[in-house]
Formats: sequence, C-alpha cells, structure tokens
Amino acid sequence: MKISELSERSGVPVATVKFYIREGMLPRGEAVSATRAEYGDGHLARLRVIAALSDVRGLPLARVREVLALIDAPSDEPVETLGRAVGALPPYVASDRDDYPLARAAIAELGLTYDPDFTAVAQLDEALRALEAAGLDATPAVLRRYGDAMRQVAAEELAPLAGMPLDQAVTYAVLGTALYEPVMLALRRLAHHHLLVADTRDR
Amino acid sequence: MKISELSERSGVPVATVKFYIREGMLPRGEAVSATRAEYGDGHLARLRVIAALSDVRGLPLARVREVLALIDAPSDEPVETLGRAVGALPPYVASDRDDYPLARAAIAELGLTYDPDFTAVAQLDEALRALEAAGLDATPAVLRRYGDAMRQVAAEELAPLAGMPLDQAVTYAVLGTALYEPVMLALRRLAHHHLLVADTRDR
Repeated sequence: MKISELSERSGVPVATVKFYIREGMLPRGEAVSATRAEYGDGHLARLRVIAALSDVRGLPLARVREVLALIDAPSDEPVETLGRAVGALPPYVASDRDDYPLARAAIAELGLTYDPDFTAVAQLDEALRALEAAGLDATPAVLRRYGDAMRQVAAEELAPLAGMPLDQAVTYAVLGTALYEPVMLALRRLAHHHLLVADTRDR
Repeated sequence: MKISELSERSGVPVATVKFYIREGMLPRGEAVSATRAEYGDGHLARLRVIAALSDVRGLPLARVREVLALIDAPSDEPVETLGRAVGALPPYVASDRDDYPLARAAIAELGLTYDPDFTAVAQLDEALRALEAAGLDATPAVLRRYGDAMRQVAAEELAPLAGMPLDQAVTYAVLGTALYEPVMLALRRLAHHHLLVADTRDR
C-alpha cells in the first residue's frame, strides 16, 4: 500500500509516519520508484503498536523505543523480556529504594512469586503507601479481594500466549497490559454505578 | 495540633498547607492566639484527601476543587453525586460525542445499567476503540472476563457504603476509586509474572 493508505488505515498522519521512519522506529517502505515506496501489513501492525503506546497510553517516546527494542530483540528468557517490556509502561515510580515492605507483605499474603526487580513490586508498594496515607484499608481481606480477581483475570489473559513466537508474545503482553487496563477500570466504575442504581431502586 | 504537626502527620509541607487554606480548599484553624491556630482531625482527613488526589493520582487543582465541592455539598441524589465525583477522576476523555456504540454494545452484553451521562461510558468506549485499533480482541468472552471480575470486586467495595452519611460515602467512593486502581493494576502485573514463572518452571 502507499503511505497515504498506511496513514488512513492506521489513523496516524503521514507526517508522523515519516517521523517514525526517520527515527528508526518504523522500517522504510520498499522503494518501487524514485518517488514511491510500498508498505505492507507489517508496517501497519507496527504503527498500531506505536500509536497504542504513545497516543492511547501517553508513553514518552523514549519508553516507546524501549518497548520496540524488546519486541525486536527479545532475550532468550521470556519472563525477563516480558518483565522489562511491562516495566516500560506507566505508572513510573521511583525505584531508588531496595526494599518494599508493604508490597512484600502483600505479596507474601497472596502467595505470589516475589522478584524485587520487577517494576510492579515498586508500583504496588507505592500504591499501598498511598492507601495508608489516605486512611483506606489494606487488610489481608481487602488485598485478597483484588489479588484473587486479578489472578483469575491474568490466567485467562495468558492462555493465548502458549505457542506464540516470543516477539509476538512480547507484543501481545505489552499491548494487552496497556490496553485492557482502561477497559477494566471503566468496567469497575460502571459496575459501581450499576450496583448503586439497583440498590437505590430496591429501597 | 499546631500547623507543624499537621504538616508532619499529613506529609504535606507547611507552605502547601497554607496555600490550600488561602485557596479555600482547607478550612482555617481555630485561632488560639494572635500568632497560633489549632488544627483538628478534620483538617488532617481533608489534607489526606487533597494529597491523594493531587499528589498520588496527579489531578489538576481544578479537578481536586470539583471533588471537594461535591464532598462539601453532596446533592440529594447519591448516585448522581457519586457519578459526578468519580467523573472528576482521570482518564479524561472527550465527551463531545453523544453516542458510544462500542461501550453501549459491551454494556448490553454484560447486562449493566446504562446511563450515557456517566463518564465511565465514554471512558469504556475510548478504551474499546483503542483495542480495536490495536487489533486486540473485545469479543463477548473477553468482555465478560473483565466485567465479571469487576462486578465481584465492585460488590465487595460497595459493602461498607451502607449506612455511611453521604459526605463520608462520597469521600470513600472517590478515594477508593482513585487509590485502589493502582493496587489492582500492580497486582494484575504481579499475577502475570507469577503465572509465567510457574509456567516456565513446569516445562
């Protein structure tokens, strides 16, 4: 396809497509004449990844590059590659501390595997400190409410990974982590609304 | 307590506390002498709400004011007040469209109550359009994966609301929506990690 069609199908303006090519984030098209290049489905898929990360989730360009580098050259260790890719997503928390007491206690309570280098540990610790500061509960029962629900969701999300080649698995994991998050949060708010309305009607 | 103790216990610097007072977001302390005012637990609770919204979740000051106004003068209609308060939280989506075809289809599929004015409808629609653009599944089975989990979580979250006075209920709902979100998302990532590690070990 021409660059104009690539732009139209991806929703990314032509000038931005050219910018990504100049920056090495998107491969050049195949030159078919002095003034025209041909683009394929690979270009379209790549543009969608970039757009999802930068436009939808608002990742800074440096972080988008980081994710693309992991997709392009995944290490031999899938868990590490996936961990680093997901670690490039927000929220960005200061990881200058080397212990995460609240997160570690919560992870132990939930019986999850603990790897202090995985960004989500720092993210959980920060989130739990915010609860504490605001005076909201983080009792074992409250933690299990979220932990059990997420474990079930995660198991279903990971099912399609089996048998995927690693680069595709990294793309799926990063996009899935980034793009199902807002779906889940919107549904949580809608569920609150639904239950409150039902409750009011019952009275 | 003195302003210095209020600052220490809330983690909010004295200059910022004074700024919130000048801006009318925090009531003045009770003057006990020409140079000293006394602050109470109400001040501390209020500061924690402001800090949670502005520092932890990064809300702009105008949005924090909006939430505080709803807490201070909740309308007679709890569902509306809660809806407006939660609508002041991110993600902020353009609500200039008046139909949300993807969200409406998803909500119908999940059997939830539909109120087009509730911000979460627009948020869900935007999130589903992003999935579509990135080529990720939003089949009924996928929607139910998140919808069922969130409905269960929401029911447990709402239980403490019963019997709370409305201003306290609004505070709880807003803080709970804002501050349990990052906990849940971090736990989802940890659950992925846990399951991947277990899966790799099993091979």
